[in-house]
Amino acid sequence: MSQAHKELADVDRVIHEPARLSIVALLYVVKEADFLYLQRESGLTKGNLSSHLTKLEESGYVKMEKTYKGKLPLTLLTLTGTGRAAFERYRETLKRALSGGLR
Amino acid sequence: MSQAHKELADVDRVIHEPARLSIVALLYVVKEADFLYLQRESGLTKGNLSSHLTKLEESGYVKMEKTYKGKLPLTLLTLTGTGRAAFERYRETLKRALSGGLR
Repeated sequence: MSQAHKELADVDRVIHEPARLSIVALLYVVKEADFLYLQRESGLTKGNLSSHLTKLEESGYVKMEKTYKGKLPLTLLTLTGTGRAAFERYRETLKRALSGGLR
Repeated sequence: MSQAHKELADVDRVIHEPARLSIVALLYVVKEADFLYLQRESGLTKGNLSSHLTKLEESGYVKMEKTYKGKLPLTLLTLTGTGRAAFERYRETLKRALSGGLR
């Protein structure tokens, strides 16, 4: 069994799920995002987005901060250092698989 | 909702499953492969590999040909044109997501 296949077999399933990949890849390129922005960009329902964010928070990949913008509640999401490292590892694994590295 | 997020939400789940991605990415770069070679490379059990290949065959992505090598039975697998196109589409979607195209 080649190294590339082994990596793919052990790929991080928390990130591999398409909706969570959407969220993590987006958070990777912005400093922080609020819940409504994420919802609009990802096209997920409020309930689905919430449940994926909870899973990401439990994995230590996302930090959720509840605050206010004036009198309106605001939920800010950022990718943690652990989350950034996990995404980078995931990205390397997938890139290797997609560029013929599995031969 | 951006185009890249929409593509990811609709990503081909037949190929996205890590074991099947391993198989398809491998078949993409070789002309054909026999079952035992695929099993050794992918690290899957015989039963798991069989069931993933059946799923890929049902989706029209893989052609399975049972033949003989001398007196020994030999199962040859090739990626169909449909399978090649599906993998290329999948690869584009993932590459866009992984290279910050979701911003």
